[in-house]
Amino acid sequence: MFDPIEKLQEYVRYASVSADSKFKDGMVGAQNFLTGIFTGMGFQVQVVPTALHPVVVAKRTGDPHWPHVIIYGHYDVQPPDPIAQWRTPPFDPVIRRGRIYGRGTADNKGPLMVHITAVARLLEKNPGLPLNLTFIVEGEEEIGSKNFKSFLQANRHLLEGDFIYMSDNGILTPDQMVVTVGLRGMIALEIELTGPKMDLHSGMHGGVLLNPLQALAELCASLHTPDGRVNIPGFYRQVVEPEPWERAQLKKAGLRKEEYARFLGISRFHTPPGYTPFEAIRFLPTLEFNGFTGGYQGEGTKTVIPSKAGAKITCRLVPDQTPENVRDCVLKALRQRCPKGVSLKITEQHKAKPYVVIPPDRSNTPKDQRPALANCFRALEKAGTEVWGQPPLYLREGGSVGLLADLKDVLGLDAVMMGLFLPEDNLHAPNESFHLGVMKKGIETSERVLAALAKG
Amino acid sequence: MFDPIEKLQEYVRYASVSADSKFKDGMVGAQNFLTGIFTGMGFQVQVVPTALHPVVVAKRTGDPHWPHVIIYGHYDVQPPDPIAQWRTPPFDPVIRRGRIYGRGTADNKGPLMVHITAVARLLEKNPGLPLNLTFIVEGEEEIGSKNFKSFLQANRHLLEGDFIYMSDNGILTPDQMVVTVGLRGMIALEIELTGPKMDLHSGMHGGVLLNPLQALAELCASLHTPDGRVNIPGFYRQVVEPEPWERAQLKKAGLRKEEYARFLGISRFHTPPGYTPFEAIRFLPTLEFNGFTGGYQGEGTKTVIPSKAGAKITCRLVPDQTPENVRDCVLKALRQRCPKGVSLKITEQHKAKPYVVIPPDRSNTPKDQRPALANCFRALEKAGTEVWGQPPLYLREGGSVGLLADLKDVLGLDAVMMGLFLPEDNLHAPNESFHLGVMKKGIETSERVLAALAKG
Repeated sequence: MFDPIEKLQEYVRYASVSADSKFKDGMVGAQNFLTGIFTGMGFQVQVVPTALHPVVVAKRTGDPHWPHVIIYGHYDVQPPDPIAQWRTPPFDPVIRRGRIYGRGTADNKGPLMVHITAVARLLEKNPGLPLNLTFIVEGEEEIGSKNFKSFLQANRHLLEGDFIYMSDNGILTPDQMVVTVGLRGMIALEIELTGPKMDLHSGMHGGVLLNPLQALAELCASLHTPDGRVNIPGFYRQVVEPEPWERAQLKKAGLRKEEYARFLGISRFHTPPGYTPFEAIRFLPTLEFNGFTGGYQGEGTKTVIPSKAGAKITCRLVPDQTPENVRDCVLKALRQRCPKGVSLKITEQHKAKPYVVIPPDRSNTPKDQRPALANCFRALEKAGTEVWGQPPLYLREGGSVGLLADLKDVLGLDAVMMGLFLPEDNLHAPNESFHLGVMKKGIETSERVLAALAKG
Repeated sequence: MFDPIEKLQEYVRYASVSADSKFKDGMVGAQNFLTGIFTGMGFQVQVVPTALHPVVVAKRTGDPHWPHVIIYGHYDVQPPDPIAQWRTPPFDPVIRRGRIYGRGTADNKGPLMVHITAVARLLEKNPGLPLNLTFIVEGEEEIGSKNFKSFLQANRHLLEGDFIYMSDNGILTPDQMVVTVGLRGMIALEIELTGPKMDLHSGMHGGVLLNPLQALAELCASLHTPDGRVNIPGFYRQVVEPEPWERAQLKKAGLRKEEYARFLGISRFHTPPGYTPFEAIRFLPTLEFNGFTGGYQGEGTKTVIPSKAGAKITCRLVPDQTPENVRDCVLKALRQRCPKGVSLKITEQHKAKPYVVIPPDRSNTPKDQRPALANCFRALEKAGTEVWGQPPLYLREGGSVGLLADLKDVLGLDAVMMGLFLPEDNLHAPNESFHLGVMKKGIETSERVLAALAKG
């Protein structure tokens, strides 16, 4: 019998951080782990190279008339920094109070293990299951799936399925299933300001030139208005208001601001007017600073005026914004506002389109929606209601999974996204964990959904 | 024959960084080196402990009627960061093109070696030299001489001299001697802003709360006006305009803005109205950011909203500002302006009063100036003119040597400061060096000054 927790522990031990070349061994370890698992289940496995990290593709091919489900996951994880804030080591998973702790447990190793387990169990019970299945597990999701689109373009023949099925998305409480129907897009930038050609003594030279740190503060401070909006002309131009049913679904979730504030540890929200915090996350774009750097940051004092100062910036995008359009607005504002006396270098990093898929029978469902996609949504509604005790909610989410737009653009496929991680799972932060009760319900739901699809 | 360059090379090899406890061995090495040198010259040496780094005291005591010169220096150096920008290792001194390169060569190991050499040569020629001499070499100058005042208070009996003689100050060109007659004071602060109680995923939570990095940018951007002044009420209240003779001395120095801009590698100055850059450095206070920190600063992207963001800040002060008064203004502004939604923690670090000493025969020389101090200024004018070929300039300087106010307060002594380092010596920055031609002239000048004082 396939033990998902034991397998997940083994999987998490591979420190597969895609952003940092130090972790190459972990990346290869995770690839080999997946190859072993899928081979053991009788799948044909290929580790398909890309310009950076390969994609693991595992196929079970039978009658071409069977439905063909493509299950997506990613084996790469976020960097573990700041390491000192982890209660237990990030790559040595431990179970405490019904949760498994470790980097990648929730994003995305645990959720992928849910679907692997569902498939393994179905095939144990019924080796002749009339379902074509393809797993594609990539290694660059946390760095923007840079090579995923060209992988898809080069491997279209492997991926002629009916729709994408996946869980790289969230739920709100352990008792309420959520189907994610939209994700924000993203652009990532790095800016660097250079003032004097070398670091200077702040006594000998302080008071005659613009300090690059001061210029950075002034430039960054100009990018928001006091009411929490982004202060860049054209930034909101393409933003589409959410549909009434979307606001209604979110309201049904019964989220409470006080609880959320307590969870975050903040004394007040800072949300643009007219939106609750829960709406702002899903329906509005952002511009966030992810890091500032410059000058002396060690112990004690160093009386230096640094030559350079920098910031890492990401924007989250919503329909119908495009990465190109938002980038153009942001770059223009940065260039126009950069204080005189320093020079500005902008490095563009990864970008992702926002994504929406509309479940069947909604006012704005496209008329040409594929029947297999609609079947899966309906199977999920039924299985979800049975296993979780109430019908799923259909919600957009604040994160970004840029490859969804790539899957749609290249393969023409939409995605059914079963949420599995919780707000308290600490994704991208220290002490990431995955809820074992949710894991169990996820496995049961996924098993029923796949069984229903096999029946047709 | 005492070889100052060889001795200096040995001295620089001790990595005596006072700010960072990793460098303890280098601190002890430098203390032992000095003990050896002074003992070799026939001085009585004590390594006087303080709460952190000890002070090396070396005494040559003869007839109590002889003049008593107290020579000050410091054996600690700045941290070598950023190490990658050094052309040769910071603690492995090398000589290139008439300069010696290494951390501490100019600040303050080379200049102290100038006076040690002058004394050694005088005593070689005349072992009975009628001069009482005390060297005090401290180990906390680069971290604000925190324990120096209490050292002075506890050791008054060792330090009953006529005046302080020292070289921890600069010149403008290798051909023009400068006597420093004022230094700016300083306060150092560290601010830390805390928003959410943990680092957050910028997709899952971005757009609902004030990002501490954004708050830091807004707070820091509020502290200056566009014309380069500090934007804090009361900050300039106690600033005294310079005397006409001071502006005239500075004009005589013939400094050129174009050359200075080229040296700094900047396209424009950013100086408060009514002051040249050279005046601003000497006669105006500043508020400078020395470091920003927060969020992810590694390779690639991390989509995080950090829990905390911070800045290191120093202000330089001029007469008659006091550290307490400026601190009160700055703290009040920071607290009033800290954006709602983040909490502010301020850590006060070291502080130093500004210092001025007025050479004899100036319009504002105090009537009660000590005769021994005036004698030394006059001996320096004569020796300086002979060795350097033109009379010294009397200038204030932008840096801070807070212990001058302590020496004045505790011992009642003023200081005669012979400048020895150049703007291009890269103090506190990578590739620090000391000009060997200046070193040679400094030794000759100091030898003549001390000989003149011995003659009475």
